[in-house]
Amino acid sequence: MTKTASNLQIDSSRLWDTIHTTAQFGGTPKGGVRRLTLSAEDKQVRDWFRAACEDAGLEVGIDTLGNMFALRKGRDMTKPPIGLGSHLDTQPTGGKFDGILGTLAALEVVRTLNDAGIETELPLCITNWTNEEGSRFAPAMMGSAAFVGDFTVDDVLSRKDAAGISVAEALDGIGYRGDKPVGAQPFSGFIELHIEQGPILEAEGKTIGVVEHGQGVLWYDGKITGFESHAGSTPMHLRRDALATLSEIVLAVEKIATELGPNAVGTVGEAVIASPSRNVIPGEIAFNIDMRSADAAILQQLDQRLRAAVAEIAPRRKVEVTLDLVWRKEPTHFDQKLVGAVETAAGALGYSNRRITSGAGHDACNLNARIPTAMIFVPCKDGISHNELEDATQPDCAAGANVLLHTVLSLAGVAK
Amino acid sequence: MTKTASNLQIDSSRLWDTIHTTAQFGGTPKGGVRRLTLSAEDKQVRDWFRAACEDAGLEVGIDTLGNMFALRKGRDMTKPPIGLGSHLDTQPTGGKFDGILGTLAALEVVRTLNDAGIETELPLCITNWTNEEGSRFAPAMMGSAAFVGDFTVDDVLSRKDAAGISVAEALDGIGYRGDKPVGAQPFSGFIELHIEQGPILEAEGKTIGVVEHGQGVLWYDGKITGFESHAGSTPMHLRRDALATLSEIVLAVEKIATELGPNAVGTVGEAVIASPSRNVIPGEIAFNIDMRSADAAILQQLDQRLRAAVAEIAPRRKVEVTLDLVWRKEPTHFDQKLVGAVETAAGALGYSNRRITSGAGHDACNLNARIPTAMIFVPCKDGISHNELEDATQPDCAAGANVLLHTVLSLAGVAK
Repeated sequence: MTKTASNLQIDSSRLWDTIHTTAQFGGTPKGGVRRLTLSAEDKQVRDWFRAACEDAGLEVGIDTLGNMFALRKGRDMTKPPIGLGSHLDTQPTGGKFDGILGTLAALEVVRTLNDAGIETELPLCITNWTNEEGSRFAPAMMGSAAFVGDFTVDDVLSRKDAAGISVAEALDGIGYRGDKPVGAQPFSGFIELHIEQGPILEAEGKTIGVVEHGQGVLWYDGKITGFESHAGSTPMHLRRDALATLSEIVLAVEKIATELGPNAVGTVGEAVIASPSRNVIPGEIAFNIDMRSADAAILQQLDQRLRAAVAEIAPRRKVEVTLDLVWRKEPTHFDQKLVGAVETAAGALGYSNRRITSGAGHDACNLNARIPTAMIFVPCKDGISHNELEDATQPDCAAGANVLLHTVLSLAGVAK
Repeated sequence: MTKTASNLQIDSSRLWDTIHTTAQFGGTPKGGVRRLTLSAEDKQVRDWFRAACEDAGLEVGIDTLGNMFALRKGRDMTKPPIGLGSHLDTQPTGGKFDGILGTLAALEVVRTLNDAGIETELPLCITNWTNEEGSRFAPAMMGSAAFVGDFTVDDVLSRKDAAGISVAEALDGIGYRGDKPVGAQPFSGFIELHIEQGPILEAEGKTIGVVEHGQGVLWYDGKITGFESHAGSTPMHLRRDALATLSEIVLAVEKIATELGPNAVGTVGEAVIASPSRNVIPGEIAFNIDMRSADAAILQQLDQRLRAAVAEIAPRRKVEVTLDLVWRKEPTHFDQKLVGAVETAAGALGYSNRRITSGAGHDACNLNARIPTAMIFVPCKDGISHNELEDATQPDCAAGANVLLHTVLSLAGVAK
């Protein structure tokens, strides 16, 4: 790496400006962004992004699912590019940073290299993956999942939103059904910068999270069937209370995840009492459970201990509890060479950092199955995400972009 | 009491027939009854009841709130009558017995006395109280509450249902705004027969519940404010989970009521997570608590121990919990002479019986404030009430009516 390259810094103001410029596409009164995938607002940001990439001298290709690939030539065009990027769609009441930071920082990296007149050995390829959020079409992380072959293109194209519009129709509607075959773009490696979406970096005062793992996930749908009866006239010992049962399950999930921690989490996020009434003992509750760990053995233990807890609670309370595992995703282990490259870059730039596990799912977790992949996290305020309150500081965003820049440089090499 | 009177039994078949005849007014396909107070169906049953009372030689008066009083003359008309009855309105998906049994058994008592040619010393007065259920207009037990002066008549007349129709308009609409002043009817005593609405008699194989107390009630509205965050990326120790907090409160309510039992119950009947999502830690929950005891000192302890539990749980979990006492009703202690009369009658008839506390509220609980009052319970299937599945056996209904007959005879006396 040349001296110039090793001292190189991205333009923090320019990055910040692009974040706030694109935040206008679907911007909400509360300062958030509503930019559902393949919507009119998504077209606006895609058009802006394509033009910005072309202005930066990149060649923009689009695959048949709308995934965008903006190629910057390298000296050695026989090798696949280093990929960098994320997604530009948001939750219905999302923020300005989730995904967006990773895509716009990738653009900033290229602009910085352009300004410095640096050519890399390997080419670079900025990506914008279609429908990471999954708010309009299921599943989430659709574009990257299809890219690695988890779903067929036809399957994805036929998925419909709540209004009955298919992905194919939505792509055609905004003119983003491209001609590049899905999965055809080769990569030598892939780096995704993202806000943490959790509170750890902020709580520990660290600037950079070197993402080593993505958590495995267990999703359960549960139902408790007790017996609805009068709150005044049913003695305590004759009750079959679905809510008291749920309460024991919620606390068991919490206890199990805590005991198997720090590398485990467990949550009951939804619970709905059927026919609730102030003076009626709840007889039926539908609920679900989300348990995660980056360690496959712990994931297994979470499942076993949860089932054991439910098997003990239900008969003791004379209620029926069903628990259906509706999704199981094994943990992601990012490429150690790339993880090391991120760590080295963060250290060389003097940023405080720690290895971290991604609690949320990301396109990078899908890509890692086929491409050596790693992620960079920066703190977000109070760990809040998927919320108009989502926030991150300009220095942290710049730090993340600088780590992205130098990780990419180390992987792509600087042409002599 | 004459020998004839002491051997007297009501006509079980006739009582059963009247129950099933009136169940047609608002009858539902599932075998329940939907007969909201002052509705067209309520008019049907009121018209039937008035005609049946007049056929039995009773003089029917109606007060300005639609409470119905059917007087059977006694030998000594200088004394106020013994009251007997309940209500004929039902829950939106109610059963055939709740309230109805008490009113129709009172009619059956009079018919039986008529058939046997028995005159009582004191007159008798069968009642049908307006809006016991409270499903259409608040509060529940409206007619009897106004009768004893807990609410003014004008206040009650102005109460509106969900469609904006006032009690006054509803009364006029079915022609049941009478001319008798509310509270003007004197009583020497009052006996209400009712299904238990709980599982105790059935569980213990007892036919008759001699109701000694009505429970005091504490109703709280609660709100938990924690912090909504990502289920995957928020470590267990940084969570402020509203649902885990609720779970501890639910189990605390259960534990407190159990420890202060058997004369105490506690229930969380409603709990709603704000913006629930499978992968989001619940940040806010609205809930309520119902705690009851027939013992005023225990009621006080329920309140104190609940507040102490919440005061311990909330700061430990770094969440805010508000608890508003929205209703407090002190326990009802029925008249010991009348309770004894019920017990004596049940014993003389050879029915297995036990003293019992009413978990639910009843018109009798209101009346007891002004009139010596007692209640008779009979078992209902599985303790189910306020439900189309509500059920009771013909022999148990007949047993309750026989106890009502002989209690009334002992209180009113048989004319020599």
